Amino acid sequence: MSSGFSYCLDLLRKINGDVPDGQGVNRLAYTDEDEQGRKILLEAMNNSGLATTIDEVGNIWAIREGSDPASLPVVIGSHVDTVPDGGKYDGTLGVAAALGVVRDISESCSDHRHSIIVAVFSGEESSRFGVSNIGSKAITGFMTLSSFFDYSDSEGVGLFKAMRDFGLSPEFCNRSRLMPAGMKAFLELHIEQGPVLDSSDIDVGVVEAIAAPTRFTLNIKGEAAHSGACPMELRKDALATAAEVILAVEKAGKEESQNGTVATVGVCHVHPDAMNVVPGKVELKVDIRGIRYDSIARTVEKLERTIKSICADRGVEEDIKYLSKGAPVVLDGTLRRLIGNVCDDLAISWKDMPSGAGHDAMYMASAVPTAMIFVPCRDGVSHSNREAIDVGRVRPGYTALLETVKRLVI
Amino acid sequence: MSSGFSYCLDLLRKINGDVPDGQGVNRLAYTDEDEQGRKILLEAMNNSGLATTIDEVGNIWAIREGSDPASLPVVIGSHVDTVPDGGKYDGTLGVAAALGVVRDISESCSDHRHSIIVAVFSGEESSRFGVSNIGSKAITGFMTLSSFFDYSDSEGVGLFKAMRDFGLSPEFCNRSRLMPAGMKAFLELHIEQGPVLDSSDIDVGVVEAIAAPTRFTLNIKGEAAHSGACPMELRKDALATAAEVILAVEKAGKEESQNGTVATVGVCHVHPDAMNVVPGKVELKVDIRGIRYDSIARTVEKLERTIKSICADRGVEEDIKYLSKGAPVVLDGTLRRLIGNVCDDLAISWKDMPSGAGHDAMYMASAVPTAMIFVPCRDGVSHSNREAIDVGRVRPGYTALLETVKRLVI
Repeated sequence: MSSGFSYCLDLLRKINGDVPDGQGVNRLAYTDEDEQGRKILLEAMNNSGLATTIDEVGNIWAIREGSDPASLPVVIGSHVDTVPDGGKYDGTLGVAAALGVVRDISESCSDHRHSIIVAVFSGEESSRFGVSNIGSKAITGFMTLSSFFDYSDSEGVGLFKAMRDFGLSPEFCNRSRLMPAGMKAFLELHIEQGPVLDSSDIDVGVVEAIAAPTRFTLNIKGEAAHSGACPMELRKDALATAAEVILAVEKAGKEESQNGTVATVGVCHVHPDAMNVVPGKVELKVDIRGIRYDSIARTVEKLERTIKSICADRGVEEDIKYLSKGAPVVLDGTLRRLIGNVCDDLAISWKDMPSGAGHDAMYMASAVPTAMIFVPCRDGVSHSNREAIDVGRVRPGYTALLETVKRLVI
Repeated sequence: MSSGFSYCLDLLRKINGDVPDGQGVNRLAYTDEDEQGRKILLEAMNNSGLATTIDEVGNIWAIREGSDPASLPVVIGSHVDTVPDGGKYDGTLGVAAALGVVRDISESCSDHRHSIIVAVFSGEESSRFGVSNIGSKAITGFMTLSSFFDYSDSEGVGLFKAMRDFGLSPEFCNRSRLMPAGMKAFLELHIEQGPVLDSSDIDVGVVEAIAAPTRFTLNIKGEAAHSGACPMELRKDALATAAEVILAVEKAGKEESQNGTVATVGVCHVHPDAMNVVPGKVELKVDIRGIRYDSIARTVEKLERTIKSICADRGVEEDIKYLSKGAPVVLDGTLRRLIGNVCDDLAISWKDMPSGAGHDAMYMASAVPTAMIFVPCRDGVSHSNREAIDVGRVRPGYTALLETVKRLVI
């Protein structure tokens, strides 16, 4: 085992406070627990000989200088904040691996030309403020000063105030804006958060593109009626209508499976939700994600048509309201090819994969050539205290990251 | 218009406090508002020359003595309590019509042999205490003293205490037990609470039988997963499974339509109910009602089989828990034929109908020959502030009730 990889595993345990598998961690953005994890990390960075700085919105930057100050730095990293009762590897693994990689490279090729920066993005999870990727959005212009006043947590603490209380200077967030422009590449290693790698024997996923969700709310308005007194043929059952829609969404997703598009109904609210009443109204929330424009567009268009026809056939009203129509972010082709070549050279099996979940890499990609490496997580479970990794299944991804960074910085 | 029918409409307006159509009324069982309605009614009964008494559980009995004290009384009535924000006609119409009928008979044939009793049952709606038909159940033995201690309202007030606070003597409820045994017949006029009559040009429904619900909770356990990261073919989506079940329930109901059986999923709870999570668990509540044993049994058996097969095919777990398996109550054949003959004689169009909803008649039928007459309500809407009647569509039912009672008491 490379000493960097074993350092990475040790560091993970330290940051997570030795919490055993099956128990969750709570490092919500800009909280004391978040601070606690970041302190351990900063100490580890300093002990590894890296100079550290924290920017105005809380991103940590730790640099190992290269031999040529004129060469652009290669940046690797992820985040350490978590969802409530969350996993120990989502984000944190990418940060710990980045630091391990820097240590391995410092040992094996100390005269690398490009600087290496370990980045720890702040506020990646949306759990606390209802907005995700605060740190990476702020430095790439997807969030600006005024937007910090748009969000607050469940206890009414505003995002701006929370950042100030955390010792940051969000009022000067513009100062960090140009940083990514001066980078050669950004690489993020992350658990897949899905079951594809874990259920196969492939070591590594090379992310082609990150899906952005197209989301809509569908309100179905039928007619509430007495569940005993209203004959079947005179009903306008909003829930039976919704059931047809739910299956149509599943079918639409399956039909675009080979193009990487998925479609989900995650929310279903019934009114009046009483055992003795034929449902009069149902609200569904539909989430469609993919990495190919044409496939997403086809899915959305097909669903709109199908929903209208289902509702018309049943004589009920429908109302579709779009919440978001995100565009998928395609990652850098040159970097992806490089990672693929590295894997081939080291006999690491790999496949191109979409990322259904969002990542800081999504925003970094707007400013700097960006790539992501996925490693398996057990049963594909994430955002859960059941999140787990098998060390042997993560090592190839670590090695691929290490070798890729080596080739980029030499 | 008979003076009794116009009296009935006036009385309805009085009891409902002149609330206009489209606005709801609130006379929950054993509340001040209930008391208010009952006071108006008692006054009307006394002004109509009827002697009144209130039994230990709150049922009102108002008697117009017949000429032969040895002849068993004919009882007509319903209830005046309502669901929250409920309708003005569910129950109340039957009570007001009963009083109108007594007045018409007093005028046109004052020497009738049998006494006529107007009955107003207490606590018919389950809204406040989660138990329905308290008054009619108590006098027919379906509820006993101890059961009054099993229920309480949303504010923790026990049923027994609420009855005591209402000025009643529930501790002596047994004293009312034998009353129905001394009755010749019980007749209840009620709005249909469904759309069958309203959507046809038939005047009157003669209720064949009252359905009792068979109810079960179905828990579906799939696997929660990231809605972006989990490919369609690796999902165990509990909501998509539930959607198949909901449609299977609808189909099973439709297949038994000609036998009067209906099947409904009224409740659907999704977990975790988040837009970005493939649902891991769903709870459905299923309500099956009919008036034919074989049809209900066939429906229930078919559904159990289908649900198991749907869940097995999708690799998810299912758990069915029965909440009730009620038996339908068939109403008295002789009375039903009498009503049919009356309608034919008066050129009132009528049809045999099941009652999907429960009524006090259901419990009275266990002790006394019982029949029900349904009249149309607008769009079949009930248990709603949208409940409404068209006076012209109710009159034939009133006339049928009047003539039937006449023939029974002479």
